[in-house]
Amino acid sequence: MAVQRYKILVAYRGTRYHGWQFQPSGGTWKGPAFPENEGLPTVQGQLRKAISQVVGHAVHVAGSSRTDAGVHAKGQVAHFDTTAVQIPPEGLRRAVNARLPDDIVIRRIDPVDDSFDAIHSTLRKRYQYLVWNDDTRPALIPDLAWHRWQTLDLDAMAEAAGRFVGTHDFASFAQPGHGRSNTVRTVLECSVSRRGPRLVFGVCGRGFLWRMVRIMVGTLVQVGLGNHRPEDIPRMIEARDRRVSGPTAPAHGLYLQWVECRTDVAE
Amino acid sequence: MAVQRYKILVAYRGTRYHGWQFQPSGGTWKGPAFPENEGLPTVQGQLRKAISQVVGHAVHVAGSSRTDAGVHAKGQVAHFDTTAVQIPPEGLRRAVNARLPDDIVIRRIDPVDDSFDAIHSTLRKRYQYLVWNDDTRPALIPDLAWHRWQTLDLDAMAEAAGRFVGTHDFASFAQPGHGRSNTVRTVLECSVSRRGPRLVFGVCGRGFLWRMVRIMVGTLVQVGLGNHRPEDIPRMIEARDRRVSGPTAPAHGLYLQWVECRTDVAE
Repeated sequence: MAVQRYKILVAYRGTRYHGWQFQPSGGTWKGPAFPENEGLPTVQGQLRKAISQVVGHAVHVAGSSRTDAGVHAKGQVAHFDTTAVQIPPEGLRRAVNARLPDDIVIRRIDPVDDSFDAIHSTLRKRYQYLVWNDDTRPALIPDLAWHRWQTLDLDAMAEAAGRFVGTHDFASFAQPGHGRSNTVRTVLECSVSRRGPRLVFGVCGRGFLWRMVRIMVGTLVQVGLGNHRPEDIPRMIEARDRRVSGPTAPAHGLYLQWVECRTDVAE
Repeated sequence: MAVQRYKILVAYRGTRYHGWQFQPSGGTWKGPAFPENEGLPTVQGQLRKAISQVVGHAVHVAGSSRTDAGVHAKGQVAHFDTTAVQIPPEGLRRAVNARLPDDIVIRRIDPVDDSFDAIHSTLRKRYQYLVWNDDTRPALIPDLAWHRWQTLDLDAMAEAAGRFVGTHDFASFAQPGHGRSNTVRTVLECSVSRRGPRLVFGVCGRGFLWRMVRIMVGTLVQVGLGNHRPEDIPRMIEARDRRVSGPTAPAHGLYLQWVECRTDVAE
């Protein structure tokens, strides 16, 4: 029977979900188990249900990033296989979107070679982190930004952000329990910009450790407050100790902005 | 006993509330009653509760605009009186904000002369209406924008918007049951602009009829779709008949942007 693999580009507001997927204690996931999340809705679960209804058989949806509970995505990438090859891709997209809740949407769908894999074909990812830096909290978007009312030194944060760029052992910027033996990662870009009360951190890399971006942002905010200096960042990296870096910024300010995948597969 | 009147500037996301206030069938409200809303939370009720707790006595909070269920505000204006004159205004603001839910916030508080009245001192108001004009629905802000995927003619909508400006009888643009005998209103400005998928309508006036802005926007979208022409707007106004104008745009795209009040009261 013919099988077609599809690559999908997905956006969602993470507020009502317990992350992209359940984290079973077995399987390929090396991090901690979250038994408290079992039975609660996940983004992957909502997609699996909607796609399965449309194609008429159970599908498995594999995502590029296992975003935590409360984390949002503008451009998550995932893939699934279906035998419903007679449905045109755009018709499939519309039918699935009609069955998804209003805070999850498939932005694009593309047929891909079955050597494509949302996890293993990932080349680069970019995350954004939104801080609402104003005396008044963001009443219109309380679940979409982290409110910090204090004055933050933008220049110091920008300088500190640049110190993350490069290939380093990021053990100091990983949540304990991440379960990875190799904590060396490459940060390609780390920046911060302001527009009105919106302070946006951008972090691009080939891959990240568990909660790495949120710990980087929490640390950069400490630099903005004057509690650390930009030149402390290299020392924190060298220490390879989670206790020397800053607090973890909350999940609800984080967005998976885009994922770049290797899709030009040799025939 | 000394009494101080305060003017407050309030922002809120209307999603979880049944509008600014209950609409009792008696009293000064001339519109229809909403018995189904009784007992459900309102923005005014949340403010009343939080302020009363801080000042130590029951207060009445009078708002400039009775926004409908689901409608948001960036700059609602309200006033209340208190005998707790010993609390500095900024301390009052912070204490009340700490007791408010995360989707309501007092942006400013100012002591005013007791001739100030949030309803009767209003000179001008401006509303914004956000349409998400993209093939993909706004998954990150489903409750903060109206999704219209169709191609909309921006020039035609801008021309039609300009036709609303002036002093007219807006009976064709009022929800039946508004209960007003005089339906003449002055629109000072009506415009539309685009930035990416965001289409923002702006309407400024001295006062509006019930759901007038939402019916204007619903009609302008019909112009954008090509179902009406810009020159139909004056004819619709002349007809003084709700049946000739377009559908009412949904509440969740509407924002009360600001209210300008007469605060320079003669001593």
